[in-house]
Amino acid sequence: MPTISLSTDFGLKDGFVGTLKGVIWSICPLAQIADISHSITPQNVLEGAFALWRAYPFFPPGAVHLAVVDPGVGTPRRPLAARLGAHFFVGPDNGLFTPMLLDAEKNGWPVEIVHLTNADYFLAEVSHTFHGRDIFAPVAAHLANGVPLANFGPAISDPARLSMTQPEKTPSGWRAHITGVDVFGNLATDLPAAALAGHPGLLFRLRGHEVRGLVASYGHKASGELIALIDSENQLELAVVNGSAAQFTGAQVSDVVEVDVE
Amino acid sequence: MPTISLSTDFGLKDGFVGTLKGVIWSICPLAQIADISHSITPQNVLEGAFALWRAYPFFPPGAVHLAVVDPGVGTPRRPLAARLGAHFFVGPDNGLFTPMLLDAEKNGWPVEIVHLTNADYFLAEVSHTFHGRDIFAPVAAHLANGVPLANFGPAISDPARLSMTQPEKTPSGWRAHITGVDVFGNLATDLPAAALAGHPGLLFRLRGHEVRGLVASYGHKASGELIALIDSENQLELAVVNGSAAQFTGAQVSDVVEVDVE
Amino acid sequence: MPTISLSTDFGLKDGFVGTLKGVIWSICPLAQIADISHSITPQNVLEGAFALWRAYPFFPPGAVHLAVVDPGVGTPRRPLAARLGAHFFVGPDNGLFTPMLLDAEKNGWPVEIVHLTNADYFLAEVSHTFHGRDIFAPVAAHLANGVPLANFGPAISDPARLSMTQPEKTPSGWRAHITGVDVFGNLATDLPAAALAGHPGLLFRLRGHEVRGLVASYGHKASGELIALIDSENQLELAVVNGSAAQFTGAQVSDVVEVDVE
Repeated sequence: MPTISLSTDFGLKDGFVGTLKGVIWSICPLAQIADISHSITPQNVLEGAFALWRAYPFFPPGAVHLAVVDPGVGTPRRPLAARLGAHFFVGPDNGLFTPMLLDAEKNGWPVEIVHLTNADYFLAEVSHTFHGRDIFAPVAAHLANGVPLANFGPAISDPARLSMTQPEKTPSGWRAHITGVDVFGNLATDLPAAALAGHPGLLFRLRGHEVRGLVASYGHKASGELIALIDSENQLELAVVNGSAAQFTGAQVSDVVEVDVE
Repeated sequence: MPTISLSTDFGLKDGFVGTLKGVIWSICPLAQIADISHSITPQNVLEGAFALWRAYPFFPPGAVHLAVVDPGVGTPRRPLAARLGAHFFVGPDNGLFTPMLLDAEKNGWPVEIVHLTNADYFLAEVSHTFHGRDIFAPVAAHLANGVPLANFGPAISDPARLSMTQPEKTPSGWRAHITGVDVFGNLATDLPAAALAGHPGLLFRLRGHEVRGLVASYGHKASGELIALIDSENQLELAVVNGSAAQFTGAQVSDVVEVDVE
Repeated sequence: MPTISLSTDFGLKDGFVGTLKGVIWSICPLAQIADISHSITPQNVLEGAFALWRAYPFFPPGAVHLAVVDPGVGTPRRPLAARLGAHFFVGPDNGLFTPMLLDAEKNGWPVEIVHLTNADYFLAEVSHTFHGRDIFAPVAAHLANGVPLANFGPAISDPARLSMTQPEKTPSGWRAHITGVDVFGNLATDLPAAALAGHPGLLFRLRGHEVRGLVASYGHKASGELIALIDSENQLELAVVNGSAAQFTGAQVSDVVEVDVE
């Protein structure tokens, strides 16, 4: 069954997302369509990239992931489609697919990226302001129908890339960074669990707060306590039990978490 | 594949939308169901009408559009179903389908409207407060199954109509009106692009702000600048690059935009 | 067609819900999936239970209802699956299914509950913090595929139960309780319509406000007036015509409504 995911900053009030589904089902009537998020902070490409990155590995092989966070719509920024490993991606060339591209490169998966130039696969009229509807949704639907990637346009090898933080080694351990804040106020970081494995003594410092050691999950400390744990993407996370670590610490994306390991 | 869209003011918290889908799939198990919006301002029929109007042309022919913004639920206002061109519509008789009806009349498409009176197509028990669940969702599902419109009740020719603004010709050009504010703060108007074509000199005035000329898209001016452009429905739109024209100007639905053309 | 509903406190911003759908379609590619609510107040099990209770009877027999409001994720609280009447339920053992269990017991429907212990039906790696993705979604998908309940683990007979208010008989009538506040500000109560039938004189008192008699629906009184009516679940409801009874009265869940019957 063809499967398509949608990630945008369109919000849910104006009907833009329903329009995308109408376009897709006009071309690929059987497609299963999952909303990943339409509440990406307007024009925050990095936030959109992380939302998709957390979700895409759990979709069936061959799934097509349509992502539109597109402040450059109507300018010469290229529209792209890509095969990265077992998944397809469609959207603007502004770095939105960077973490998936890094996954593919790190794992040696196939990488194939094309510049969408073949208007046969667009809607008949292409507006200047809604390429999600007029270019990306029809291309995603045709991809889901099995049209080969090469049909959509010429291959490219220089997609835009976001600059993303990386954890840095320090004399006492690691300097990690907050990469996201979820609905519960949990703080994701860029430090993989592997960096902490085998170290009995761990100290995490964030905005004047300190946490000692990891716990297995939220229910293992008292309500209101700041904790460190490994999240469901196998990265370091800071959280407050039955509360919000974002509110408790005031932390924001890009803030530094100092990690001392013994 | 039967396709149904949903537009309501039910919100997404209470489960009403999920209930509609349960009812539909109990009757039409294969239906593809797209949410257009469930965040219409409660009981704002005009806002609901515009959300559906922007989206419906992009659905496959034969799609059924269920819309419920229904302050009169439980009073004698009639429940309706309609065929307007290639699309079907189901909802209360309060003007919610006015722009689609105008499209059909303007283009000479088939128009067929029935008063839903045949309770064989309703749920067995009909509440006084949730006709979306008890009348409109089952009727939409039966329509999607191919039941002829005439089976649902007698034809009518006097559906309720919203009074909608129209652009007015002025000595120096046009008096247009704001018809909607989207999630980005972009301001839609009732002035079609055709009214501006072929005029090299254009001046737009809104609440003391002035914009000269049209640009092709958002990325063609500096961040923070108020711009005028043609939107994805081929109407005049005012926007702020990487910002909100609604916040910048304080404009609201029905505000006047004076347009000088040379 | 296999049908699955989702009720969570995950919100719609972070992509968790899309991840659940990816997992489900990887196992049960044809599943129809309806969102009931993902805006349950974080960790408010009672609110999640009521949202699902209002919606589930309207789904086709055999539907699988996945519900995750799970403050105890990663602690020894049991993951469960259940058959209650014609519907299946999957989620944590924290009382989330109490009203559906009461329905089944009251009506003498089949009740079968199992402790999910068979990891063959989980994702290959189970995190400590996202059992919705790693345990509940795959189990729901396998149930939708027709895997017998007994395959997932041993039967249990002591599921956790929420304490829920019940209306109390008083000398002058009933003491009812607010059980929920919907998006319109309407106030649901625990008093069934049957308790009021046949009584010509009715007086409702809530936080110093008084309402006399029932009306059939919202449109039967003037805008701004506080009214009492029977809601779409056949329970007493208090509402303000074209307004919010929650704002008007300041009422909250668990508040008492005194009902005098004559």
